[in-house]
Amino acid sequence: MVLDIIKSRRSIRHFLETPIPPDVLSSLLEAARWAPSGNNSQPCLFVVIREQANIQKIKMFAPGLGGDPTALLVLCSDTSVATGTYLMDIAMAAQNILLTATENNLGSCVIRAFNQAAIQSLLHLPSHVMPELIVSLGYPAKPAKVPSRRPSEEVVHWEEYGGHSSE
Amino acid sequence: MVLDIIKSRRSIRHFLETPIPPDVLSSLLEAARWAPSGNNSQPCLFVVIREQANIQKIKMFAPGLGGDPTALLVLCSDTSVATGTYLMDIAMAAQNILLTATENNLGSCVIRAFNQAAIQSLLHLPSHVMPELIVSLGYPAKPAKVPSRRPSEEVVHWEEYGGHSSE
Repeated sequence: MVLDIIKSRRSIRHFLETPIPPDVLSSLLEAARWAPSGNNSQPCLFVVIREQANIQKIKMFAPGLGGDPTALLVLCSDTSVATGTYLMDIAMAAQNILLTATENNLGSCVIRAFNQAAIQSLLHLPSHVMPELIVSLGYPAKPAKVPSRRPSEEVVHWEEYGGHSSE
Repeated sequence: MVLDIIKSRRSIRHFLETPIPPDVLSSLLEAARWAPSGNNSQPCLFVVIREQANIQKIKMFAPGLGGDPTALLVLCSDTSVATGTYLMDIAMAAQNILLTATENNLGSCVIRAFNQAAIQSLLHLPSHVMPELIVSLGYPAKPAKVPSRRPSEEVVHWEEYGGHSSE
């Protein structure tokens, strides 16, 4: 069930050296490509980084990127087609990646804290393409703790703010 | 497989009158609640709308909302806890809802085109809570066409922009 995958996903920041099989990487990219987008504008481009030298270069400009992932997916906005929802579109693609990674026993973490201009330059992105999110990937070195969640009574409201379920 | 669910999700805008069972609705909310968020800030609140009178009121202020869904989930930002990634956090919660809906044979559509202030007032949201996305839900009245996708060669780059896979 998708819900089981959703609930078992964790942000993983410590990885084994085991490489990610190419077919698994392809699944992640296919999952991302089929995310919805505003007016089907498909504003997300993906740069796959597997070479350790390149991963290390990116880490220099991404303080949010910890551990030693075996691959990175850099999700970029293609501003030549983006609409007002582009950041949400890219986030939905990222979530598809995280869930497909989880099902394939891969650990993952989404990083937003990086120097966009530096990464744009490193990856030779043209001016209309901007890096927006990095997803780090690898097989987990250790299990992650289950993070806390706000109780559903606090975040779910029925019919109006503060409203309760009739069931 | 999650990828199969991801690829079979469509934006559905025509719905049957069949109501959504409460346990399915609960699954959607649980899926949303377990989405990742920046610094685990959990900035997303959910207002569930099942009463047709309330759905019709919302439709008056949501030109992007078509058809007659049997339920709406209004995803709101709780600005008292939100971080800089809150729109992405909410989009990831929305994607979890869409995938769980798809697995449960529900149709869904994400709507961003609505009058935020009007919906905020209708739902009696306090000033620190802002509606950001509406997900319309219901059993599909008819199958949807498969939308086109940009080819993977166009959106996937390896190691750098324009780079090809070595495999």
